[in-house]
Amino acid sequence: MGSKGINSKIGVLGGGQLGKMLAQAAADWNLDISVLDPTPQAPANCCAKQVHGDFNNYDNVLAFGQQQDIITIEIEHVNLEALKELKRLGKEVYPDPSSLGLIQDKGLQKLFYREHQLPTSEFIIVDNAVHIHQLIEQNIIAFPFVQKLRRAGYDGRGVQIIHEESELDKLFNEPSVIEQKVAIHKEIAVLAARNISGEIMIYDPVEMLFHPTANLLLYQECPCTLNGDQSEQVKNLAHTLIEKMNIVGLLAVELFLDKKGNILINEVAPRPHNSGHHTIEACPTSQFQQHLRCILDFPLGPALTNVHSILLNLLGEPGYQGEAIYEGIEECLALDGVYIHLYGKKETKPMRKMGHITIVGKDPVYVKKIATSVSEKIKVIAHL
Amino acid sequence: MGSKGINSKIGVLGGGQLGKMLAQAAADWNLDISVLDPTPQAPANCCAKQVHGDFNNYDNVLAFGQQQDIITIEIEHVNLEALKELKRLGKEVYPDPSSLGLIQDKGLQKLFYREHQLPTSEFIIVDNAVHIHQLIEQNIIAFPFVQKLRRAGYDGRGVQIIHEESELDKLFNEPSVIEQKVAIHKEIAVLAARNISGEIMIYDPVEMLFHPTANLLLYQECPCTLNGDQSEQVKNLAHTLIEKMNIVGLLAVELFLDKKGNILINEVAPRPHNSGHHTIEACPTSQFQQHLRCILDFPLGPALTNVHSILLNLLGEPGYQGEAIYEGIEECLALDGVYIHLYGKKETKPMRKMGHITIVGKDPVYVKKIATSVSEKIKVIAHL
Repeated sequence: MGSKGINSKIGVLGGGQLGKMLAQAAADWNLDISVLDPTPQAPANCCAKQVHGDFNNYDNVLAFGQQQDIITIEIEHVNLEALKELKRLGKEVYPDPSSLGLIQDKGLQKLFYREHQLPTSEFIIVDNAVHIHQLIEQNIIAFPFVQKLRRAGYDGRGVQIIHEESELDKLFNEPSVIEQKVAIHKEIAVLAARNISGEIMIYDPVEMLFHPTANLLLYQECPCTLNGDQSEQVKNLAHTLIEKMNIVGLLAVELFLDKKGNILINEVAPRPHNSGHHTIEACPTSQFQQHLRCILDFPLGPALTNVHSILLNLLGEPGYQGEAIYEGIEECLALDGVYIHLYGKKETKPMRKMGHITIVGKDPVYVKKIATSVSEKIKVIAHL
Repeated sequence: MGSKGINSKIGVLGGGQLGKMLAQAAADWNLDISVLDPTPQAPANCCAKQVHGDFNNYDNVLAFGQQQDIITIEIEHVNLEALKELKRLGKEVYPDPSSLGLIQDKGLQKLFYREHQLPTSEFIIVDNAVHIHQLIEQNIIAFPFVQKLRRAGYDGRGVQIIHEESELDKLFNEPSVIEQKVAIHKEIAVLAARNISGEIMIYDPVEMLFHPTANLLLYQECPCTLNGDQSEQVKNLAHTLIEKMNIVGLLAVELFLDKKGNILINEVAPRPHNSGHHTIEACPTSQFQQHLRCILDFPLGPALTNVHSILLNLLGEPGYQGEAIYEGIEECLALDGVYIHLYGKKETKPMRKMGHITIVGKDPVYVKKIATSVSEKIKVIAHL
């Protein structure tokens, strides 16, 4: 593949926390890593060279990519045309632009699952709000349903549940996927990795608990409470997906276990993922090092689970905006098994992801107790 | 202590591999960390802001330190007068300049052990080669003996064994410590940590195997083969030393177990240390995060040993000098439990420390087998 191994120049589109943690992993092997991000002093700036530019801008991505040997992503909403051109110019681009194009569009994603007979909730693709109204009148869409924008959704933005007629004025007037609302029993995520040679490694599934309104991950536990069969089923789905989608790198798969016991694919992200942050402390190979192994075509590292873990997102406290102040850090560090990651975002906003905390231990009961204690102590605020 | 906690500006004298790994640990908490180092693109440059300057130069250290809240070190041979002045100016300096002054001088170190009745080999302090010759004539010094320069020794430089009269022309003609050569059974290192509030944590001792001629660490194992009593004795000595030397930060203690079963202090270093690199993967708290906890006066993290480990130094292959080429990386990464750290030194030289590899596992036999395999596969060479 023309890879220069550890001497490759690696360019990452996006320099947020995922880019930062990828750069931290790259530092162990002294990799030459750069990120493209428009934010002054983006989080990844601490451990990677930052080029200021917009990863959605064709010219910015092209110019950035031409300086690299390998181009990868930490966010999927990037300029696809520039990536295609970079590939044409002989650069290595992971994931492949065609796979990324499929995933960038939640409509195409759902059609892919249907085409490959992979389990996912029932859905219909719509053009705009008028189209949705028509389908409701024709009894093709029934309440409650979920509307997801086909493009540019991220961290729960662009996703909403419409429970009844009175909420229809909230509809996004854009191309969307309308999904039957699943009666969710559990929300699960699983992380798969695949290198250029096709070697695949699947991490153990994790269970996620979301914020009831902000649709942001609050809490995640690994191993999860799925039974052995369910866990195998989830891992097999991840294996099938990463192969059929032809992903080189990581693929995070979010799934539902519904109340009838069905496992349904919700959506995927072809990059390091929030649901895999526990791998830094709880697994022999972190998702970040694994992603590097994938794109450098190195042998993959073991993905087993060493220890019980709970991952908490550290979100900006509601009611505060401004320069971030972290409360409770010292108290949390006094507890065994607590690993704090602060992303270095200058400004906090309500519910903004400012960091995460992983709590590990041999005893799940201890881990849960400490996690509860940590979530009570730690806060991100700002001067009012 | 006027500490600003995680908002402190931390300045490190030295930007080699120890500074680099300290900066990597600092990135988890988004600490503001800078290093002072004269090398263009010093290893720490990847994850810390580098100020170019000489850590032995009064003006350079003073100017650098004035921009910081907390000043610490990754090498003990730094300008002490500047550190004293920075302390006088209200900066936090760890370790304290008085403790550092004691340790910089191996003569004072030995006198300190004698004064505090701490076990160490017999020694005599000499001014120069003539002085040594006189003491030999007076039968005060007997062959074989060890000559150590009082100042500026590092990684075995400035240390030599004089076996017999014919070797006397090798004598350093400088102020030195002459030590009785110990009949070494085992070489041991132990790492202690102490925060500003006085909390102390001691890691488990490790056993070291040195290169027979270059006096560089080749191989280190943890836990080591000391019996429980010996291990306790070593840990107690480390506890006593870090307290009596009034160190804030890490103190690495190197010791001998002699053939009669005596434990003798060899020397100490008040900073992160080669013998503690396994703590990154094998302990809940790496020595680098622990050092940060110390100087920020955070509660210390647990220092217990999670897993068996062997640490190999990756040394420049004899016979090669020039831009470093790493051979065998991929083959080693195919083995479970292998963690490679490359320091990013552009140029390799015979026996130069270019990186280290930690091999971890539950089974000591497996770990030893993999370590042997790794040491055969991996090499740092250069184009001839």
